[in-house]
Amino acid sequence: MLTIKGELASAHVEAEELINHIGQTVQIHGIVYKIREMSGFAFVLLRTKRALVQCIHSGDFSTFPLSELKENMSVIIRGEVVRDERSRTGTEIRIISFEALSCPAEEMPVVINNREVNASIETLLDFRPITLRNIKERAIFKVQEGICAGFRSFLGKNGFTEIHTPKIVFSGAEGGANIFRLDYFGREAYLAQSPQFYKQIMVGVFERVYEIAPVFRAEKHDTSRHLNEYTSVDLEMGFIKDFTDLMRMETKMLAYTFDYLKEHYADELAMLKAEIPTADEIPAVSFVEAKQMISDAYHREITDYEDFDPEEEKLLSEIIKKQTGSDFVFVTGFKSSKRPFYTQDSKDDPEYTDSFDLIFRGMEITTGGQRIHDYNVQVAKMRRLGMDVDKFSSYLMAHKYGLPPHGGLGLGLERFTARLLGLQNVRYAAMFPRDINRLEP
Amino acid sequence: MLTIKGELASAHVEAEELINHIGQTVQIHGIVYKIREMSGFAFVLLRTKRALVQCIHSGDFSTFPLSELKENMSVIIRGEVVRDERSRTGTEIRIISFEALSCPAEEMPVVINNREVNASIETLLDFRPITLRNIKERAIFKVQEGICAGFRSFLGKNGFTEIHTPKIVFSGAEGGANIFRLDYFGREAYLAQSPQFYKQIMVGVFERVYEIAPVFRAEKHDTSRHLNEYTSVDLEMGFIKDFTDLMRMETKMLAYTFDYLKEHYADELAMLKAEIPTADEIPAVSFVEAKQMISDAYHREITDYEDFDPEEEKLLSEIIKKQTGSDFVFVTGFKSSKRPFYTQDSKDDPEYTDSFDLIFRGMEITTGGQRIHDYNVQVAKMRRLGMDVDKFSSYLMAHKYGLPPHGGLGLGLERFTARLLGLQNVRYAAMFPRDINRLEP
Repeated sequence: MLTIKGELASAHVEAEELINHIGQTVQIHGIVYKIREMSGFAFVLLRTKRALVQCIHSGDFSTFPLSELKENMSVIIRGEVVRDERSRTGTEIRIISFEALSCPAEEMPVVINNREVNASIETLLDFRPITLRNIKERAIFKVQEGICAGFRSFLGKNGFTEIHTPKIVFSGAEGGANIFRLDYFGREAYLAQSPQFYKQIMVGVFERVYEIAPVFRAEKHDTSRHLNEYTSVDLEMGFIKDFTDLMRMETKMLAYTFDYLKEHYADELAMLKAEIPTADEIPAVSFVEAKQMISDAYHREITDYEDFDPEEEKLLSEIIKKQTGSDFVFVTGFKSSKRPFYTQDSKDDPEYTDSFDLIFRGMEITTGGQRIHDYNVQVAKMRRLGMDVDKFSSYLMAHKYGLPPHGGLGLGLERFTARLLGLQNVRYAAMFPRDINRLEP
Repeated sequence: MLTIKGELASAHVEAEELINHIGQTVQIHGIVYKIREMSGFAFVLLRTKRALVQCIHSGDFSTFPLSELKENMSVIIRGEVVRDERSRTGTEIRIISFEALSCPAEEMPVVINNREVNASIETLLDFRPITLRNIKERAIFKVQEGICAGFRSFLGKNGFTEIHTPKIVFSGAEGGANIFRLDYFGREAYLAQSPQFYKQIMVGVFERVYEIAPVFRAEKHDTSRHLNEYTSVDLEMGFIKDFTDLMRMETKMLAYTFDYLKEHYADELAMLKAEIPTADEIPAVSFVEAKQMISDAYHREITDYEDFDPEEEKLLSEIIKKQTGSDFVFVTGFKSSKRPFYTQDSKDDPEYTDSFDLIFRGMEITTGGQRIHDYNVQVAKMRRLGMDVDKFSSYLMAHKYGLPPHGGLGLGLERFTARLLGLQNVRYAAMFPRDINRLEP
């Protein structure tokens, strides 16, 4: 019988620790990113977990010919650490020797080790397993990790419990045709379009809950804004005074997360030239007010009083940015007929709802609102809409046996990441995007 | 135009802060959990986000008749905080007045406010939206949140990057019949049985990655160990020396997470009478050795030299517990024919693999191992197994263009939670379990 101890004694130094090893000979592992021959020596850039480490090959100290080192080899490099103010790590390594742990079978079909991957979005995505190795490409997803970590940290501090709800469901939350169907042991089941029902149910359990998980929409759009599977940041909270509590919570969460990113992901943000907005306060306009502002500023005729088109979201953002300096704008006062059945109608005018969208740099990233918590009110509204109430009995159990006033919101992680980093297509912010044409890799 | 500020000025006190308000009149919100009439006064237990708050109704200080308060009402209670050493919060509240925010439409069909929900597992799950409100039931999922938080904290500190990989996939990782199929805009697609391919691909990007996300298995088992959708904790790491590095990492992660739980979830662990094991070191036995130990200890004949049955996992755990005191045991030396195609075969004997299982209190909770990183070795093995290599070309791209030696593991969150808390059926550790018969709620 062996005994496994939780000790991981590696003789290898991390890139971030090199600065503490000046003058010493160390071992470091990574993947050879780029070899650049100069006169009399060569730069060997080693890609590690998070950094690029600048190594030098030279006849003066290297004990092997440069030709033995190849790009995309996985190696352990042995060398002396010297100070170099110009490199990101503040150091460089004079390579003495190396050990190859793994060699590529072929040369890369796409150049990934320049500043950018210079390829069409199709090629970028077709070769995703390797184009993600470009340090700017991967930085997008390191920042995305940070966004989730920031949200989780904020939500934990604010009394939200993380939940895991099923993605195979018996009924679509939002209804409609945009739903993936599957055979579940002979019964028809669906892929969850959102954790809506479950997060409302869980308000009755934990008062405040959140989930960061995949959702699925069978929308036939092929645009730069749509994915058929995306990561949804969902939160739901009980005992709200009104729906502006939700907007306040989101504002606070965004401000917190931006600070979190600046503290923990500064290198990636710099590499991506990301401009982190402020979100100490966010302007809010009603839908009708917004339409009027766009009409006034751009002399556009208002034709649709119920929806924005993508162009209008952009124009509204521009106006708000000019007027207030904010990269964000809440829109409220949506019509009841345009919102899902669980949305609370406004007391003042039941044709409108206590709901909102959040637009960030020209694109809607959040939909939220207060939900109906009273069983009889909810059932009456469903009947008015011609819905089969019995089909929703397990969802409505939460209401029937008592649910506090509550509401919540969903934020699309990929859209948010794309807007934050100035990416023109939401696919750039998905590791392995799923769209109407793309199911692979 | 309104301005939304990220300030949430609630006049309500949190249960955890009551101790700082002794002698003061406060407002607190929650759901009335239980009303217990005594002679001359009544206990009113208020269920808040995480605690039960003991309130007292009495003619001496309450300004309304007790009959106005009902169980399962959402309320704001106004009252004076007094010290009470016997209550969990160290305080109780003398109710002066209350405001009802929401009233249930009907009385509960199941009693949820006793120490346990005294119902069959079928009833417990049929009424999940309300049975989860029982404070012991919900404590299971608060601990489950803590398990994830502990894992994430550990993995973050150890250089793992969190990833989000697609759940709608073009090819099943493990293959076989146990896969859910769906129509994806006219093409056949599958629900991911694991993030296996993607996490291996991402080793080439970030070296160390993890994901905590749903996975889907269309297994027709109806046992206390199986779910058809579960939450998988997956990690994958590059530059391992051999597969024992993975076992060491898991050992360290478990020890860290147990400390994390004891620090942050002590109340729930006490309520559930959870015995948190130690995982400073974990014994490891080979599969054949394990079979022999079981045979010797229980005089059982060994009939199957390739698999454990559930009973054998239990017996092995008992033996190891007796011999070493450990609640965990790693099993190594599984046959190549029993492991997936990407598993690295052992150098010493290619009929065996560099892989392992982890058994925790009688149940397998983890499968892991070193993967093949060399493109030609992987392709040769796939051909030997009669697989269509072309179908896996996007996965194999990672290998073709260079992937370090690596391996990883998956841990079933619900199984782990159930073992940790001594729950006899994995369904007790899933908020809304999916099994062959259950698709709702």
